[in-house]
Amino acid sequence: MDVESTITQMAKSAAAAARILGAAPSDVKNHALFTIATKLKKEADRIKEGNQKDLATARDKGLAPAMIDRLTVTDATIASMADGLCEVAGQQDPVGAVDESWIRPNGLEVSKMCIPLGVIGIIYESRPNVTIDAAGLCIKSGNAVILRGGSEAIFSNQALASVVSDAMVEAGLPEASVALVPTADRKAIKYLLAMEEYIDLIIPRGGEGLIRFVVKNSKIPVLKHYKGVCHVYVDLSADMDMAVKICVNSKAQRPGVCNALETMLVHRDIAADFLPKAAKSLWDAGVEIRGCEKTLAILADVVPANENDWPAEYLDLILAVKVVENMDDAMAHIEQYGSKHTETIVTSDYARARRFLREVDSSVVLVNASTRFNDGGQLGLGAEMGISTSKLHAFGPMGIKELTTTKFVVHGNGQIRV
Amino acid sequence: MDVESTITQMAKSAAAAARILGAAPSDVKNHALFTIATKLKKEADRIKEGNQKDLATARDKGLAPAMIDRLTVTDATIASMADGLCEVAGQQDPVGAVDESWIRPNGLEVSKMCIPLGVIGIIYESRPNVTIDAAGLCIKSGNAVILRGGSEAIFSNQALASVVSDAMVEAGLPEASVALVPTADRKAIKYLLAMEEYIDLIIPRGGEGLIRFVVKNSKIPVLKHYKGVCHVYVDLSADMDMAVKICVNSKAQRPGVCNALETMLVHRDIAADFLPKAAKSLWDAGVEIRGCEKTLAILADVVPANENDWPAEYLDLILAVKVVENMDDAMAHIEQYGSKHTETIVTSDYARARRFLREVDSSVVLVNASTRFNDGGQLGLGAEMGISTSKLHAFGPMGIKELTTTKFVVHGNGQIRV
Repeated sequence: MDVESTITQMAKSAAAAARILGAAPSDVKNHALFTIATKLKKEADRIKEGNQKDLATARDKGLAPAMIDRLTVTDATIASMADGLCEVAGQQDPVGAVDESWIRPNGLEVSKMCIPLGVIGIIYESRPNVTIDAAGLCIKSGNAVILRGGSEAIFSNQALASVVSDAMVEAGLPEASVALVPTADRKAIKYLLAMEEYIDLIIPRGGEGLIRFVVKNSKIPVLKHYKGVCHVYVDLSADMDMAVKICVNSKAQRPGVCNALETMLVHRDIAADFLPKAAKSLWDAGVEIRGCEKTLAILADVVPANENDWPAEYLDLILAVKVVENMDDAMAHIEQYGSKHTETIVTSDYARARRFLREVDSSVVLVNASTRFNDGGQLGLGAEMGISTSKLHAFGPMGIKELTTTKFVVHGNGQIRV
Repeated sequence: MDVESTITQMAKSAAAAARILGAAPSDVKNHALFTIATKLKKEADRIKEGNQKDLATARDKGLAPAMIDRLTVTDATIASMADGLCEVAGQQDPVGAVDESWIRPNGLEVSKMCIPLGVIGIIYESRPNVTIDAAGLCIKSGNAVILRGGSEAIFSNQALASVVSDAMVEAGLPEASVALVPTADRKAIKYLLAMEEYIDLIIPRGGEGLIRFVVKNSKIPVLKHYKGVCHVYVDLSADMDMAVKICVNSKAQRPGVCNALETMLVHRDIAADFLPKAAKSLWDAGVEIRGCEKTLAILADVVPANENDWPAEYLDLILAVKVVENMDDAMAHIEQYGSKHTETIVTSDYARARRFLREVDSSVVLVNASTRFNDGGQLGLGAEMGISTSKLHAFGPMGIKELTTTKFVVHGNGQIRV
């Protein structure tokens, strides 16, 4: 079969599977999730074997060490995928639940019932764990899913997807509920993005280039973020040791990801004390600092920042630092240069903490915690399908609840409109 | 100023106003709503004067009576707009409210806070009450709104919008929060749809032609429905008198609207008893019946239905009628020909009522009530911005809650990722 026919057939089968999965009872869906978790551990050798093939190719192609790190599947990675599935299984089933209900003066009982979206397409790069995270979240939320992983992970993903297929069949759910695009041919993506008749939502995860390609070519609604230019604002009332730890963790714990810190904003009244301490720890962690003029006046040996540094997503051990007049100045900077992804304030002041949380327009806003917590697993969603920085439908990490919508359900006893 | 500059300036001002309105306290927003309601009644003569100008033009142009009916503003229409505003003011303010919160094992307190979308553009035809409904819902939900009414209602809309402007200024809120596009030039729509930097959501209301134009040209996400092919399924256990009343009301109370009934599906075991009774009442209401073969065998003098009738949105006193084998058959018909808008079952059977509500994939699903209740006002939302039949973000009538989204808010005390 050619690529177009393959994709069309997958999309049709997924739509048919979605109707069955959408009506499946929670215990059946949970049974499938637990079965996948068990099988992942049982089939660990086969999965790692597939992964070794991908890793060999990656090394031959001279992929960057960071990419190879993301691609690598170990026993620990497999255990973490299995744990994520169990956490998702343990969550309350959103499908069919009624969030709100009220009674109209004419006796009509109106409620909003949570329902699956239908079929979700996910297009991702590198990390094979996305295959399992996406499958788990979609099964639990009653959505069929079409997975399109990167060519660099194709053998890993095939091994993982075949574990999922086996488990679905064993649980009595349609095998087509979770389908991996079987080809690395890039045309497959274009065909997938044209299936608006069968696919309800597309989620791209990867570099900005992939995401822009998907947005440009999709006839299906897309939820995504282009980049994460995340900020920590160190308030004048901050506990300085805490602020140092949060900034170092936000920047250096994993610098290549979207929720890593890119710009640190420091209140001018604390800058002279705080910056030398922070710089020492940041330098120890291998971070290069690029500072505004006021930063340069406090820290020697710092690269001067220019206008290109404020909107930069370095994805590297580089940090832009700016001394601000006050919190308003910090929030104005975030509004101008930020990406609505993740912003933290470090403060001990009650009113400023509240105001920052209320007024900063980002998908995750934190007080006294690392930006690295903008992650579905870390926030308690079990796993995540991706992070949205557009406000429609979902804003922030997307877990099972974000993969559903609601319909209105009305109970009457003969009401007509007058 | 040319049209493009006017629209760009409006969009920029709306975005600035949205930041202020989004942080405004509930009592200030409610005060604005009550002030508009009071002023509408006080300025009734001026509003009706503007409306008379539009009506005169409409008559000169020979507009259809249904269109003239929709365009007409009376004291009753004004009172109903004012009532809608008071109902919206009486609703709980969603902005800043926290729906869900939970605590992570590391002590992080995670919650989801409701926030406005930002700036909403609404493009609509005919009915001037949409101007007030949209303004009211957007003010309450903290969103700025740009209104683009039809050229046929321009003087009515200008009179209404100036009442809103005066009230906003009196309440101390930005005048630019609610802005009416001042020109009937159609180019204004294209410019509006390109303002993705400032406008977060577009809602078109009107004929299918207008909606397809908007979807095709918009760079901004669009929530809409193309049409409403609504069904009533009369189950074998239905109370026949109730079923007749519901079908007549659904079809004939206002046949030209999207939630009017278009196809009646009747269980074969009740058809011989039910169809003659229903036909008598439908004919009395002036409805033409187009029947399937089994319908023709029961009802004489009925036009035979063909394949074009099942997906038809007549928007007129015409009803397609089909005798079905059972509820599965009815649900399969709805899935094949429906528009995910509004579906009703008339039944006295508990299990079938539940199954219909769970499995029918429409924005509003009802038991024993008229399809005409798919309406924000009727369902208790105070008013509506429109009805969405796409599942992302909102499905069904959109009230204040549907004009908001949530962000994650996290309280920590120094947590970092390990």
